[in-house]
Amino acid sequence: MGTAAVEWAAAYAESIRDLPITPRTSAAELKQRLTEPLPVDGRDFADLLDVFREVIVPGSRHNGHPRFFGYVSAPGTAVAAVADFLASALNANLPAWRSAPAPTELEHLTIGWIKEALGCDPSAGGLFTSGGSMANFTALAAARHRHCGDAVAMHGASAHPAPLRVYVSTETHHSVHKAAALLGIGRANVREIPVDARFRMDVDALVQAIEQDRAAGAEPFCVVANAGTVVTGAVDPLREIAGVARRYGLWMHVDGCYGGFARLAPSARSLFEGVAEADSIALDPHKWLYLPADCGCLIYRDPEAARAAFRLDADYTRVTETESAEAFAFWDYGPDLSRRFRALKVWMLLAHAGSRAMGEAIEANLDCARHLGELVDASDDFELVAPVGLSIVCFRYLPPALRDEPRSESDEQRLDRLNERIMVALQRAGSSYLSNASVNGRFALRGCVLNYRTTRRDMEILLDDVRRAAEKVSD
Amino acid sequence: MGTAAVEWAAAYAESIRDLPITPRTSAAELKQRLTEPLPVDGRDFADLLDVFREVIVPGSRHNGHPRFFGYVSAPGTAVAAVADFLASALNANLPAWRSAPAPTELEHLTIGWIKEALGCDPSAGGLFTSGGSMANFTALAAARHRHCGDAVAMHGASAHPAPLRVYVSTETHHSVHKAAALLGIGRANVREIPVDARFRMDVDALVQAIEQDRAAGAEPFCVVANAGTVVTGAVDPLREIAGVARRYGLWMHVDGCYGGFARLAPSARSLFEGVAEADSIALDPHKWLYLPADCGCLIYRDPEAARAAFRLDADYTRVTETESAEAFAFWDYGPDLSRRFRALKVWMLLAHAGSRAMGEAIEANLDCARHLGELVDASDDFELVAPVGLSIVCFRYLPPALRDEPRSESDEQRLDRLNERIMVALQRAGSSYLSNASVNGRFALRGCVLNYRTTRRDMEILLDDVRRAAEKVSD
Repeated sequence: MGTAAVEWAAAYAESIRDLPITPRTSAAELKQRLTEPLPVDGRDFADLLDVFREVIVPGSRHNGHPRFFGYVSAPGTAVAAVADFLASALNANLPAWRSAPAPTELEHLTIGWIKEALGCDPSAGGLFTSGGSMANFTALAAARHRHCGDAVAMHGASAHPAPLRVYVSTETHHSVHKAAALLGIGRANVREIPVDARFRMDVDALVQAIEQDRAAGAEPFCVVANAGTVVTGAVDPLREIAGVARRYGLWMHVDGCYGGFARLAPSARSLFEGVAEADSIALDPHKWLYLPADCGCLIYRDPEAARAAFRLDADYTRVTETESAEAFAFWDYGPDLSRRFRALKVWMLLAHAGSRAMGEAIEANLDCARHLGELVDASDDFELVAPVGLSIVCFRYLPPALRDEPRSESDEQRLDRLNERIMVALQRAGSSYLSNASVNGRFALRGCVLNYRTTRRDMEILLDDVRRAAEKVSD
Repeated sequence: MGTAAVEWAAAYAESIRDLPITPRTSAAELKQRLTEPLPVDGRDFADLLDVFREVIVPGSRHNGHPRFFGYVSAPGTAVAAVADFLASALNANLPAWRSAPAPTELEHLTIGWIKEALGCDPSAGGLFTSGGSMANFTALAAARHRHCGDAVAMHGASAHPAPLRVYVSTETHHSVHKAAALLGIGRANVREIPVDARFRMDVDALVQAIEQDRAAGAEPFCVVANAGTVVTGAVDPLREIAGVARRYGLWMHVDGCYGGFARLAPSARSLFEGVAEADSIALDPHKWLYLPADCGCLIYRDPEAARAAFRLDADYTRVTETESAEAFAFWDYGPDLSRRFRALKVWMLLAHAGSRAMGEAIEANLDCARHLGELVDASDDFELVAPVGLSIVCFRYLPPALRDEPRSESDEQRLDRLNERIMVALQRAGSSYLSNASVNGRFALRGCVLNYRTTRRDMEILLDDVRRAAEKVSD
């Protein structure tokens, strides 16, 4: 079984550049090919691998394709797939040290490497999570607990009747709003602060909002800064926001799920000044460490502050060891009890590639995005709609005829619709993939370079593909 | 890389019966062997596989050993490890249909098989989660939303000042209490209902508590029934609880994380009557489907009721497809956005083994537990401290001299301490593994049979190992 699977994977990795990115299929067709009742008798693995190869793979979007620029999506790596196999064959489960001594130590080690990559203090700690949404949720839960203490955990949010306030920018990922809804904080208590022309949080406006809310009897408790917004790749002024957080006693959380690892690239490093001052940092190794889903990560500046929010007492979680490293339990720092051995793939990737090669790969992605930005700027049929931020480019097709004319609102709406049709045609054609974004209220084509396979040449092919899609929809 | 990993896995699976279950190591030793700074240069995969084989594997607890009876722990299977490799090599990510058409359809299919295994209505729906804690959390979030509507999601739990109440038995897993703390419901609003002599929720006491709470102005909104408690394997009277839930308009959630799949075993089937009437059911395929971590699961009777609690709107989650199956998004039904392709291992296992063989394996686990119960009953040095529930046996060592004497409280405390020492000695010896439980306030040795490798003979070896540990600590 293993050998046949490995052979498929090697062939897949070799052919991925030539596959159409998106499958030409429908829910009806897939259901027809896959659906059957729960089988009473088993069948050969070879049959199942055939279904995988013939139905599941061709019916999948190929996120590892060098011109898949949609959303924020990692390509995966061979060594990490092997690590996931080993993790499942060993079947380690990491609720606590005693359940998996060496895997737990390996998680500490790799979390330490990530701290090092970010410049965090050695006293920081953290854990891997199922993804970025859960890392943001977990951070917000810890922040709320530090502000409210055990009263809310014991008696519910009604025990703390003053409205809490968490500050984000207008560009912040909606997982923060979703977390606020789930935690009983409420979406309306997530205040969106305006951004500057580079889509970075306006720190004066942040201070003003905090002052206003305090005056009105609300309780500011948390600010979320972006280290790479998903729409335009903006990094908020982290050091300034850290200063505001300190002044007003707020928990500062950095959402670095998309961009955090770009600190490994020399040309981006200075953007991350101040990141280590945050109380918590969310990162997604399954984004810019190129790892396959799932692997999110949360770093706490002071792990003990987080512990109070999550610890639970039950017979089956009673730890009898007296040595503190051996009494360590991940369940004290997040919502999960059973936990997959995610550290293995992080460790194997970083130890196999080394931080220098990782930094170079990230730097090359930044370079590709800047190159695309330059190509767009130099063209007479495209325009940037936002500055290139990290590896994200937001642009649109702008027919030369419309270029130098003053444009009415209805012209703009026509451009929005045209670019949306171009995006759909591009996605269907399958050679390059961009996703959508709304920038200053206008429809934008958006590409995010996050793949070690991508080259400058791919950016040129992308623009040609977009031109072809534009011709097609103009017919 | 893949071939070397597969060779290791095959050898590991073959030797697992002969390995000591628990590693003889310490945090200090492991740190010394693993710690190094973030490596600048990479190194060969062969080196890393050596570290895995020589440090990580020997430093792990072998959860797949046929006499590992601790907690609720699956052994993993070869086919599922291969599936995890394939999932990571393909690097599918399943936030929504459009992100992964065939993988999404495969998740629908396997969720359908699980519904079938439980006897659920075809209109039910669900999704895989990182584990049981997250499945219980997600269900409670949906239940709260159905009761409170958008007011709490928008304005926080303070917008609904009457205290909410969720009912559990005294035996319910603490992840429910933790979820209540995180959601802003509060641990104190989780009311523990007493159990009968078989550790099943007392339904009359449940009705009484609901009536009392209503009279006092609290709002009962949810009841959690156990389909296999983790301490003694008790299954609550599901049909009766469903009747109470209907009568009082409560959301009924079934925590079947440990026991739910036992419905596939003929001798346990009748215990699950009424399970399909629940509004939600949490299950852990990474428990009794023998799958490696992580794979939890949540089934909703009415998926639309859940959707309202989780949906979010953002550009990057805007779905333009008009066909509803293609507009489907998992983020509408749970907290995560990026999601691992867990369905592949569930599908490969069930299609490879078939439901008959799965049912037989679970039946054999039940038989082993009953056999252990009979051996304990027939012995003159052990006694059961709870009826055997599903595949869980709680018992203790009781020296023949103390057997027929009336025992004082200080005798009982001595027995508690003796059995705790026996457990520690047993775990250290490494041939069999039991964990601890507190049953009616007394310390119990607790074993849970959840491994297709385990035989009746292993139960006999277990008792001999416990006797040997008892001799050792009595020295």
